[in-house]
Amino acid sequence: MEISQGRLRADIEANAAFGAVDADEGRGRTLLTGSDADRRARERFVDRLRDADLDVRVDAVGNVAGRWTPPGCDPGAAPVAIGSHLDSVPRGGIFDGPLGTYAGLEAVRAMQDADVAPGRPVDVVAFTEEEGARFGIGTLGSSVAAGGRDVADALDLVDDEGVTLRERLDAIGFRGDDGIDPASWSAWVELHIEQGTRLTDAGADVGVVEAITGITNCEVAVAGEADHAGSTPMYERTDALAAGAEFVRDVERAAEEVAADRESAVATVGQGTIEPNARNIVPGEVRFQLDLRDTDAGTMDRLVERCRTSLARLERTRGVETDIDRYRTSPPTPMADRCVGAADDAAAARGADAVRLHSAAVHDTANLADATDVGLLFAPSVDGASHSPREWTDWEDCATAAGVLAATVRRLAAGD
Amino acid sequence: MEISQGRLRADIEANAAFGAVDADEGRGRTLLTGSDADRRARERFVDRLRDADLDVRVDAVGNVAGRWTPPGCDPGAAPVAIGSHLDSVPRGGIFDGPLGTYAGLEAVRAMQDADVAPGRPVDVVAFTEEEGARFGIGTLGSSVAAGGRDVADALDLVDDEGVTLRERLDAIGFRGDDGIDPASWSAWVELHIEQGTRLTDAGADVGVVEAITGITNCEVAVAGEADHAGSTPMYERTDALAAGAEFVRDVERAAEEVAADRESAVATVGQGTIEPNARNIVPGEVRFQLDLRDTDAGTMDRLVERCRTSLARLERTRGVETDIDRYRTSPPTPMADRCVGAADDAAAARGADAVRLHSAAVHDTANLADATDVGLLFAPSVDGASHSPREWTDWEDCATAAGVLAATVRRLAAGD
Repeated sequence: MEISQGRLRADIEANAAFGAVDADEGRGRTLLTGSDADRRARERFVDRLRDADLDVRVDAVGNVAGRWTPPGCDPGAAPVAIGSHLDSVPRGGIFDGPLGTYAGLEAVRAMQDADVAPGRPVDVVAFTEEEGARFGIGTLGSSVAAGGRDVADALDLVDDEGVTLRERLDAIGFRGDDGIDPASWSAWVELHIEQGTRLTDAGADVGVVEAITGITNCEVAVAGEADHAGSTPMYERTDALAAGAEFVRDVERAAEEVAADRESAVATVGQGTIEPNARNIVPGEVRFQLDLRDTDAGTMDRLVERCRTSLARLERTRGVETDIDRYRTSPPTPMADRCVGAADDAAAARGADAVRLHSAAVHDTANLADATDVGLLFAPSVDGASHSPREWTDWEDCATAAGVLAATVRRLAAGD
Repeated sequence: MEISQGRLRADIEANAAFGAVDADEGRGRTLLTGSDADRRARERFVDRLRDADLDVRVDAVGNVAGRWTPPGCDPGAAPVAIGSHLDSVPRGGIFDGPLGTYAGLEAVRAMQDADVAPGRPVDVVAFTEEEGARFGIGTLGSSVAAGGRDVADALDLVDDEGVTLRERLDAIGFRGDDGIDPASWSAWVELHIEQGTRLTDAGADVGVVEAITGITNCEVAVAGEADHAGSTPMYERTDALAAGAEFVRDVERAAEEVAADRESAVATVGQGTIEPNARNIVPGEVRFQLDLRDTDAGTMDRLVERCRTSLARLERTRGVETDIDRYRTSPPTPMADRCVGAADDAAAARGADAVRLHSAAVHDTANLADATDVGLLFAPSVDGASHSPREWTDWEDCATAAGVLAATVRRLAAGD
């Protein structure tokens, strides 16, 4: 079973032309859901599915699937599904999404070329709006398919220009009426770029994900008193920024302590505002946006608890008023043992150097875990660059990972 | 020598009508240099100076002075000058500036009414653009008058609408050609609102300023590495905000330690930016604006040194790159002993409860210290509110402070 690196590369490069942007370094693209670039990318994908004799379906939110029913297989058997997404963030890279989507198709073509005929059908899928770059909600298409979000609610979402997803999909001819139902799948496997440096650091060919991290977002407010920077002596101040600075340090310290035992635990204060933010006024309020992640839900709870403890201490020691709103939690998602096992075996069989790791970002796979057994593979990212034209995966690494994907699917679709 | 509280109040209230703004609480005004409100405020001031038989001069940058030559005095003797400014910040209060300006005139009227005839002329002065709200440079008019800034340079300054100070003054008819030369004065005394709570905390009637604080402004940059908030383990981060948080705490701690010995020392990180300021990206850079103040230049240097030490430590311990730019320093200004002494004696003679203090904000008086002996008096500010419609000084306190001003001028202008 041979992967054609040239065929896979040609697909990814052709796809990269849709929404291509100028970049000083690397190759970038902006592919927003419902744009003309999206229409052309989807039409080409459909053409390529049909070129490989796959039966194409498009569902109500524009998710696209091509079904291969191998000769001699039971067409009623639960299929194995593979794929990813085609959309990008603004000025994103050319591999994030398209690699997994076209590697899925290449896996089918490789099986076809080698006369490998699994006992189950194989679906090759591209989900709508994974990045959330146009409608603000990431992994949108897969969440609808997996039953986690209502179709009508999704179609009613409005972008920054006041246009609904329904209108965007109608405009490009990709609001379909076919069914794409992950609950009917035997398993799902996605190949994605790592967006980190663990694979390149380890010199590995492919990553076998054991769990997708959970993410908790909190908004934290610290209120002090805005005062004149000259006439307010130090002992009379209730400086919201000074208090907030202690909080930022406490969050970092808490995460470092937890991460000493489990590297997957991270906490980030990435965003903040100061009020009134004037050089000669003692800050009256600061607000922070927090991003806390781990593959263990209890650890995430513990990190939030450490934030609360810090704020309670600041209220006592500094007289500030504080508030923490844990407004969103996406729980950790363990991968199915049989998918992880199949991927391990596939890598070994193909002589690929695989390492186990966790996914520090959320992917469509996390939604699909609610409906079926899921697996996730990573290809190496040069320098870990992501969501940038500098994002890169060497073509040889793309092909190697696609080969592991094909061998994984072959095992999962072998038929029981 | 009686102060007429009603006459002083009528002047301040009439002046408050120019540029008056609506406010839920208090009384506010926006009086920007060269506006129609400024023209009307100046014209009324000139009328009131003339009503008291003062000879009015207007200099090249619009500073206005009215000279009283008391009967029997030597008209060639160096005058004593008193006054303040009429302009305001956007939505400022009605006392900041006008109190000192009209109390100066009231002091002259009180001496006239009481047939007090000092041996020196008295100038009552309103300086242009003290707040810097239109042309970005505070205490502009007094800096030109005192020789610290070139007239042509000042007139060429451009506001946000692209209009020069020259054009603004021409438009309201207040670009004059008279001389107003602080170097020719025997002394200068300004009455201003405190903009703090030390007087009300002490239950005092008037503050006798010993020194005006120096101010140093620094811009600080801390550069780390922007990274993905999920895929970058804690131990691989160079988080600019976490480092910046340590810096903010260090600045606060340094100021608290210094302020344990001298309350006038304050340090404020009031303004900051985070780049890229996204919830799911480890901050790559933070920038802070610092405001460090004290009445002792050596202490200010020491505070800046503590900032540098903190940044050097962060470079070592966290691998960030840092930069500190001390881009502006206005040195501390001691008041002249004879002005402070005259004010103390004046307060005692009038039965006013006076306290010695420092000025935590810069005033026109700081510029004039380069040219003549200066003194500065404070009237109590309710709740310390300043640069806000909530700014307030009780009318009785205005009159008491004006009385101390009049008695101070009487002593300084007695003639040697």
